[in-house]
Amino acid sequence: MTASGDTFDAVDVIRTKRDGGTLSDGQIDWVIAAYTRGLVADEQMAALAMAVLLRGMSDAELARWTAAMIASGQRLDLSAVARPTTDKHSTGGVGDKITLPLAPLVAACGAAVPQLSGRGLGHTGGTLDKLEAIAGWRASLSNAEFIRQLNEVGAVVCAAGDELAPADRKLYALRDVTGTVESVPLIASSIMSKKIAEGASSLVLDVKVGTGAFMKDASAARELATAMVTLGTAHGVRTIAVLTDMSTPLGRTAGNALEVAESVEVLSGGGPADVVELTLVLAREMLAGVGLADVDPGEALRDGRAMDVWRRMISAQGGDPAAPLPVARERHVVPAPSSGVLTRLDALAVGIAAWRLGAGRARKEDAVSPGAGVVMFAKPGDQVREGEPLLELHTDDPARFARALDALEGAYDLDGGAQFAPTPLIIDRVG
Amino acid sequence: MTASGDTFDAVDVIRTKRDGGTLSDGQIDWVIAAYTRGLVADEQMAALAMAVLLRGMSDAELARWTAAMIASGQRLDLSAVARPTTDKHSTGGVGDKITLPLAPLVAACGAAVPQLSGRGLGHTGGTLDKLEAIAGWRASLSNAEFIRQLNEVGAVVCAAGDELAPADRKLYALRDVTGTVESVPLIASSIMSKKIAEGASSLVLDVKVGTGAFMKDASAARELATAMVTLGTAHGVRTIAVLTDMSTPLGRTAGNALEVAESVEVLSGGGPADVVELTLVLAREMLAGVGLADVDPGEALRDGRAMDVWRRMISAQGGDPAAPLPVARERHVVPAPSSGVLTRLDALAVGIAAWRLGAGRARKEDAVSPGAGVVMFAKPGDQVREGEPLLELHTDDPARFARALDALEGAYDLDGGAQFAPTPLIIDRVG
Repeated sequence: MTASGDTFDAVDVIRTKRDGGTLSDGQIDWVIAAYTRGLVADEQMAALAMAVLLRGMSDAELARWTAAMIASGQRLDLSAVARPTTDKHSTGGVGDKITLPLAPLVAACGAAVPQLSGRGLGHTGGTLDKLEAIAGWRASLSNAEFIRQLNEVGAVVCAAGDELAPADRKLYALRDVTGTVESVPLIASSIMSKKIAEGASSLVLDVKVGTGAFMKDASAARELATAMVTLGTAHGVRTIAVLTDMSTPLGRTAGNALEVAESVEVLSGGGPADVVELTLVLAREMLAGVGLADVDPGEALRDGRAMDVWRRMISAQGGDPAAPLPVARERHVVPAPSSGVLTRLDALAVGIAAWRLGAGRARKEDAVSPGAGVVMFAKPGDQVREGEPLLELHTDDPARFARALDALEGAYDLDGGAQFAPTPLIIDRVG
Repeated sequence: MTASGDTFDAVDVIRTKRDGGTLSDGQIDWVIAAYTRGLVADEQMAALAMAVLLRGMSDAELARWTAAMIASGQRLDLSAVARPTTDKHSTGGVGDKITLPLAPLVAACGAAVPQLSGRGLGHTGGTLDKLEAIAGWRASLSNAEFIRQLNEVGAVVCAAGDELAPADRKLYALRDVTGTVESVPLIASSIMSKKIAEGASSLVLDVKVGTGAFMKDASAARELATAMVTLGTAHGVRTIAVLTDMSTPLGRTAGNALEVAESVEVLSGGGPADVVELTLVLAREMLAGVGLADVDPGEALRDGRAMDVWRRMISAQGGDPAAPLPVARERHVVPAPSSGVLTRLDALAVGIAAWRLGAGRARKEDAVSPGAGVVMFAKPGDQVREGEPLLELHTDDPARFARALDALEGAYDLDGGAQFAPTPLIIDRVG
């Protein structure tokens, strides 16, 4: 029984989903708009989010929900950008600095990369936190600066403005404190509402799978990837997803300035093999998505064109690409306890260790320590010798070492018999 | 991963229940206490309530949850009351004025009845709203006045103070707006935390079943009754439950002053048969619960002792038992559309009609109209003649008639062939 004459009532909407029913288009449009304007209270949206998590959403409900989230704000108009636009989104992992070499690389190959990014929370780092390790670099751009940089440089990584899917900003913060994060439709609509609103014509999703990722197994990751590809395609964005391994960290560093340094190595034609491989796989997908499949990103990496774009991209946002990167005040080496092949190095444990060393934040308002993090001297498959450095912990506050070491307890295996079957980095492709 | 060093974290508690796990005693104690103090936010409790609704609670969880709700406030100490204490609680129905004759009747038989009651919301009336139709009567008493009246009069019906299960007050209001009312463990713990905290040694529960009740079928009502009896018993309160029919309204009136008048008829030895029957059944159960099974409440009703206690109970709280009751300004008669036996008169429809006429409130802050309501000239089984009055609607605002009549559309059946099988009023007994 509704008490008022409103067309829709929050309790009716909640009950419909709670009892396993299907939300109507009108209910979805109303509840998202009313929540954005504060007419549906946080506690009502929290109950609805829990009901969605436990009852699920049909494909039609998810499509409408995502459209309503986009409609809560503005969809960016990139028609003033001369080049074809393409973007990448990663669901988040440990040591995942791929955006840093990837965005300038794809720009160097002729596309424009408009990446609106976020800050990290918990054990996965945020791209903006990494770039802010560079002296002078600023994450905020006006719309005019954003369009100009896309035309002049070809790549922008900056903070999303308030006008982009404001319903998602509010709902994301709510889900974080109400145990309603782990829902495929809620994750898919959150990511895709922002990415579709961003206005790129093509999108490549890097869906991480493994201990350090949100999705612990490939089937859940595939479900999420499929939902997102369907949503992007329905909104006219050419979308594909790649499932990639996140059971071990990407590259040999986890931490803001450490990852910038590693990204610059990749842009210089060096860097860890896994970072280079994933950067090139994603670059090829992004280029193929905008009709540039015949351009070889490997060449742009080798001949320095990607590095040129990187420098211009950093400079355009006030950063000094030649400035020395911040270095943590204290280091602690973890030696290999025995000789053998490193058969496992757990991504989640390394991510938590880096976070505890100061690279990440526990609360949104916390500051991060740009120099903090973990350097990995060996990756799975590498031969190590007892007593030689395995990991090096970096922090400004030596009191943090103990808790970081706790996180690393049991985080790696050494096999003297050298039995090792490498996990493929690229697991699957959807779309 | 919890971000803080707290022993418990709201998101962990929510996730445990969300994923179908069992909450630990520590988690339950913490979340109820922290919610009461505002350390767990409304949106977090809303998500937890939805998870409880969809995942359920074990008997052990429910017992602990209820104990934590009681422990959020004070349990009243009735040791200064000389007589044995017993109370009744009804899950709410249409025309359910039973407390009005019952409390003085049981007091007249030698027990003390400490009833802390509530106001109505929606189509079921509240006992305090009914008594407030009596000129001068006030619902608020101090603890000292409460104990004195129990000793001197033997019966008190008054508003629950803020110290009684404050967690429940907060959670009840939250559930109302978040679609999390319809959960057996949440209903059982809400009712029983208040009733146990009230301090009576014995408790009789009247669990309503039917269209006008919260529980639409007997099996759901039996589940709720069993849960509540188990909870009361575990807390040392001798508890039984009676399942009674609420497919048709109780008595011949629904509305505040109308129900007071009907209650006074019952206390005068008259009144509708169903109201008298249920009052006596519940009185016998209440008396048996405190070792007074040999006292006949029928005699106390017939010889005027119950009426004497009623007058003293009303006077003690400032009311004038001899004052004329408020009468609505406007009446509208609904005639029988044909001749025959009334085979159905729907409780929910009559309840909504009375509510729309002004007897109930849509929001907590609304006022009720004391004279508004519905008078029923026939009850199921009665023979009626075409054109004679079947129902009479009372309101202060004639604009309300149309919506009340809408609610009564299809609310009754007349059978010319006079086939009628009466529904028993008392359906079952649990405990």
